[in-house]
Amino acid sequence: MTQKFGIGVDLGGTKIATALVDGEGRVLARTSCLTEAQDGVQKVLERMYGTVDDVLTEAGIDVGQLAGIGIGSPGPLDSKTGGVLNAPNLGWRNVPLGELFRQRFQVPIQVGNDANLAGLGEKWLGAGKGVSDLLYLTVSTGIGGGIIIDGKIHTGAHDIAGEVGHIIVKRDGPLCGCGRRGCLEAMASGTAIAREAKAGLKRGESSLLAKLAGAGEPTAKHVGEAARSGDPFSTKLLRESFTYLGLGIVSLLNVLDPEMVVIGGGVSNLDDLLFDPVREIVKENFGASPLADVPIVKAELGADVGVLGAAMLVVAQN
Amino acid sequence: MTQKFGIGVDLGGTKIATALVDGEGRVLARTSCLTEAQDGVQKVLERMYGTVDDVLTEAGIDVGQLAGIGIGSPGPLDSKTGGVLNAPNLGWRNVPLGELFRQRFQVPIQVGNDANLAGLGEKWLGAGKGVSDLLYLTVSTGIGGGIIIDGKIHTGAHDIAGEVGHIIVKRDGPLCGCGRRGCLEAMASGTAIAREAKAGLKRGESSLLAKLAGAGEPTAKHVGEAARSGDPFSTKLLRESFTYLGLGIVSLLNVLDPEMVVIGGGVSNLDDLLFDPVREIVKENFGASPLADVPIVKAELGADVGVLGAAMLVVAQN
Repeated sequence: MTQKFGIGVDLGGTKIATALVDGEGRVLARTSCLTEAQDGVQKVLERMYGTVDDVLTEAGIDVGQLAGIGIGSPGPLDSKTGGVLNAPNLGWRNVPLGELFRQRFQVPIQVGNDANLAGLGEKWLGAGKGVSDLLYLTVSTGIGGGIIIDGKIHTGAHDIAGEVGHIIVKRDGPLCGCGRRGCLEAMASGTAIAREAKAGLKRGESSLLAKLAGAGEPTAKHVGEAARSGDPFSTKLLRESFTYLGLGIVSLLNVLDPEMVVIGGGVSNLDDLLFDPVREIVKENFGASPLADVPIVKAELGADVGVLGAAMLVVAQN
Repeated sequence: MTQKFGIGVDLGGTKIATALVDGEGRVLARTSCLTEAQDGVQKVLERMYGTVDDVLTEAGIDVGQLAGIGIGSPGPLDSKTGGVLNAPNLGWRNVPLGELFRQRFQVPIQVGNDANLAGLGEKWLGAGKGVSDLLYLTVSTGIGGGIIIDGKIHTGAHDIAGEVGHIIVKRDGPLCGCGRRGCLEAMASGTAIAREAKAGLKRGESSLLAKLAGAGEPTAKHVGEAARSGDPFSTKLLRESFTYLGLGIVSLLNVLDPEMVVIGGGVSNLDDLLFDPVREIVKENFGASPLADVPIVKAELGADVGVLGAAMLVVAQN
């Protein structure tokens, strides 16, 4: 890692979070503000610029001391130019984000997508410290991924590598948000678990879930709570979902052969309810292969992963 | 590519094939001999050394003019040292192949596995010329793969990346040679097709296959011939198998995002019977994504792919 400083900007649908870090990834200053995308591209850009100026001032560091600014953005992106091709939740289309930041700050700018940056953050500062090839999965409302090879993000030919949520684990399975059927995301994401929970209640499964969800709809978190209380329906549902997650990881290990698998995202907070079946499936499938022993661990950076990963784009990856 | 010369040695269970190429991959001399592994490691090594001496003499080139020698070997391997950990069909265990060649010839030695080298060969000299990220699949008795990123083989942390035949496309599907169930190889390899053909005949499917196979057992080639003659059972069988191949490729495209997919191996000679359903599935699954347009093409190097890929390990990859 360089001894210079870096700034990470995490552009989300609701919030802009920005942090200034040193060469070891220690946060020297941080700030955040609301995105308020409805105000238009220019306003959002000015808010982003403002957060960068703020952390520089707070840390007492000159822009010239920066290795650069890394930006995490919804995509699809063009990581070479830093352009945002299309971000429906921001209402952005073909915004030359990297170029605009370059003009404003005159330092190297790198742009990457959330899951890739989370993988990069975990590799340099989180669960994957010291590892060079890592597969990161975020299991949340959707399932995303980041493939880190030799300490760098594998972005692919069209900047869409690492879409691990869309490997197909069940032919003609449930419809996925992407329009395909039987994607890993349609089998094991928080959304998929909630969908199956709802379907179960609807067909009259007797379950603690009905009580936990109350007047509302059951969530993956409810399913986890019910399973912890020994609810058989919820226990079975999670085991089924995470068996598919495990099978997906078996496929990914066969293809990528990483040193470590790191799982983050809200659903990873189900802890052993998720990790136990996944680890079992992997062990069971790989027998004596070294892939049976690839550590499958929980992400460590929590809510900070976005800004830290973005900062690592300029601090560590170059 | 360097202007130096390189030698590729393809060590197979029955044959050793060796070629000397120039910086553009043109073959200047070639030779081959039987492996006769039953004679023991030392004899096989001497035969391999002999083929190298022979091509050098034939081309009138001094060993000092070599960029190195690349060796394709059955694996698992240790690509860093060039050691062959275990090659049951040769009866080899922990043979320091790279080290022995280094001592004998005093030039850089690289060792790689068949499918990876085939991918590298296709990238530099075959269907993938001019492309830098390529996914190679060989569909034969088994299904193997080679992942080329930035013109180099992605070997992975344990030298087993690219095992695309063992992504799981059907949970609890047919048993695979690897001991797992529902691997791509168990659904779409030549062996899988022959297995399904045999099962069909056994349960009394009326098919041309019975006639084509005669007293023997039906092969994937027979199934292809029968399908070309309009045999409904064979047509359906191939479509079913290659639908799984297509779904597997959809998953691989999502993960790796290559510029091109190249398919080789004996079963790729079924041509449109294989490529049509695969391309259809990919188109259908990716809609407007750039992945819908990733070319999926047939390998070009044929029987030469082993030696040429091995030579490219030292001529192009370094």
